Amino acid sequence: MKIGDIHHLTILMKDAVVYMIDQNKLPFIIEVKAFEDYEGTCEAIRNMTVRGAGAIGAAAGFAMAQGFLQGADPEYVRNLIRATRPTARDLFFAVDRVFEAGKISVQTAVDEAQRLAELNVEAARKIGTYGDTLIRDGARILTHCNAGWLGFVDYGSALAPVYIAHRKGKRIHVYADETRPRSQGARLTAWELANEGVEHTIVPDNAGAYLMSKGMVDLVITGADRIAANGDTANKIGTYEKAILARHFGIPFYIAAPRSTFDFETPDGSAIEIEQRSQDEVHYQTGPDRDGKIRTIRVTNPGSEALNPAFDVTPAELITAYITEYGIFNNPADLLQLKNKG
Amino acid sequence: MKIGDIHHLTILMKDAVVYMIDQNKLPFIIEVKAFEDYEGTCEAIRNMTVRGAGAIGAAAGFAMAQGFLQGADPEYVRNLIRATRPTARDLFFAVDRVFEAGKISVQTAVDEAQRLAELNVEAARKIGTYGDTLIRDGARILTHCNAGWLGFVDYGSALAPVYIAHRKGKRIHVYADETRPRSQGARLTAWELANEGVEHTIVPDNAGAYLMSKGMVDLVITGADRIAANGDTANKIGTYEKAILARHFGIPFYIAAPRSTFDFETPDGSAIEIEQRSQDEVHYQTGPDRDGKIRTIRVTNPGSEALNPAFDVTPAELITAYITEYGIFNNPADLLQLKNKG
Repeated sequence: MKIGDIHHLTILMKDAVVYMIDQNKLPFIIEVKAFEDYEGTCEAIRNMTVRGAGAIGAAAGFAMAQGFLQGADPEYVRNLIRATRPTARDLFFAVDRVFEAGKISVQTAVDEAQRLAELNVEAARKIGTYGDTLIRDGARILTHCNAGWLGFVDYGSALAPVYIAHRKGKRIHVYADETRPRSQGARLTAWELANEGVEHTIVPDNAGAYLMSKGMVDLVITGADRIAANGDTANKIGTYEKAILARHFGIPFYIAAPRSTFDFETPDGSAIEIEQRSQDEVHYQTGPDRDGKIRTIRVTNPGSEALNPAFDVTPAELITAYITEYGIFNNPADLLQLKNKG
Repeated sequence: MKIGDIHHLTILMKDAVVYMIDQNKLPFIIEVKAFEDYEGTCEAIRNMTVRGAGAIGAAAGFAMAQGFLQGADPEYVRNLIRATRPTARDLFFAVDRVFEAGKISVQTAVDEAQRLAELNVEAARKIGTYGDTLIRDGARILTHCNAGWLGFVDYGSALAPVYIAHRKGKRIHVYADETRPRSQGARLTAWELANEGVEHTIVPDNAGAYLMSKGMVDLVITGADRIAANGDTANKIGTYEKAILARHFGIPFYIAAPRSTFDFETPDGSAIEIEQRSQDEVHYQTGPDRDGKIRTIRVTNPGSEALNPAFDVTPAELITAYITEYGIFNNPADLLQLKNKG
């Protein structure tokens, strides 16, 4: 997608070098980092220079290919990559595929890593094309967190339909939830939309019922971190709230996600463990002061404790439909058709 | 209420001097400011050194009394006070009462201003006593924004039942919504609760459905900015969301407010205009850096626009009951009994 007038990918490998947009610095500093060996790429996954399931998967595949190019011990490299972000499903999938390809030749491993990255773009584009059919000209769309191209190699999941609709000339307006505590909506989603020229407004997470009650939202689309076999969906904390509000106001609520996000080993949402993250994410905020210097400040009462559940689980019955690269599924029972795909 | 071991009031007048806790600096700096003339007190209302309907009402009464003590033109002083915060109902009520009392004597005006401040404390304490009956030992209470003693002369509205229950020895736990964009929950409510020794946790506004779905919330209590004749209630943005969630999960949702918050001239919520505040409240956050220096930083994508509706209106049908100084009203139709009181 675009930064200024130039088309960028979140991550790519050229020759033996992996390039990534540093997501720890966005939107205040735009910097592309280059990693010449698998050790550097692993560290970038670990420290969240690259974020989002699809983008992490591509990074893992590239790191494994770099391992082969460097002539390192493949088993060692695979284990190092696996240890970076232990809960990312796409990571395990990609690293194993490239590991197997490397048994044939180094070039086969490199080709496989590139092919996986291309498949990621392709899946996101198809999600966008299917999702676009749900967006009428003039639609006002609410989204939560960032499920845009920064979390994939390109396009994204929740934002892919927005980008396709926008490129087809539909007039759309996106309300981007701030998404406290890490503010991925106010920072990453707003930054993506601004660069792509999509009309948008950042809103406090508290404004959802206000917007819906005023008739200002036609549909809600979010991404997903993990979708259980029955359709229950784990996503960024606050997603569940928006799904309840959408139901209350009779507004459609869509989950957009590729096949790789579906976990048919998990029967339902109750089996999904919610990661409790550091309370410091609630207590502190980082950003530039008026002189442009990046600073971290306390935004809560010093001495008070905070709770920081990273995700919540939206029950399938609140989800109007699932937008995937294999089409739109209105009935969670039909999701099982995806089991043998991808 | 307590700061450390000492009992404080939000605002008081001693001789001709008005003392206020500077709420612009809380919770990072605790400072009591003294205002020796009505001009200073007016400026303190305008720049939000004092905030919250009840506290503003007391400040307005004190400013009018100071005007009489200074021998200023009463009409001029009254108009100056009225111009400070044009939407605050309690302000008009208090300034007019003290203005009328001043026609008898300067001392009558001073006495009336003190009496109004005492009535404010009394109403809040009664709200606390009635509300306490709704709180069982061991209760987990969710609140939104700050409707504590800082918004009144003492006790508060939503937090008054919490304080009374706590003093009676009930074990309670309060979840304080952060309340973006101004974070009154994370800053003021958490600060109040910490000083009073009430067990509490700050939660991102996004965590409401998570907490309720896990059975971690027994009841929700918030304050109100204005309550229409039919019971529809304007309060801090996000209140409406919590009321919808509470209904979804079958959890009682209470509004705590004194008679002075009820506006029987407004038939229902649709007649309440929502103040749109500066988008900079969303874009910027202020707090101490690690060296304790207060700094303002950007927390959103530079160049993106934000929407900042200050309030939303929760329909009466989502409100379980209203806790007032005249008792608990389960049926909005009964609220009309309050019309001729106070």
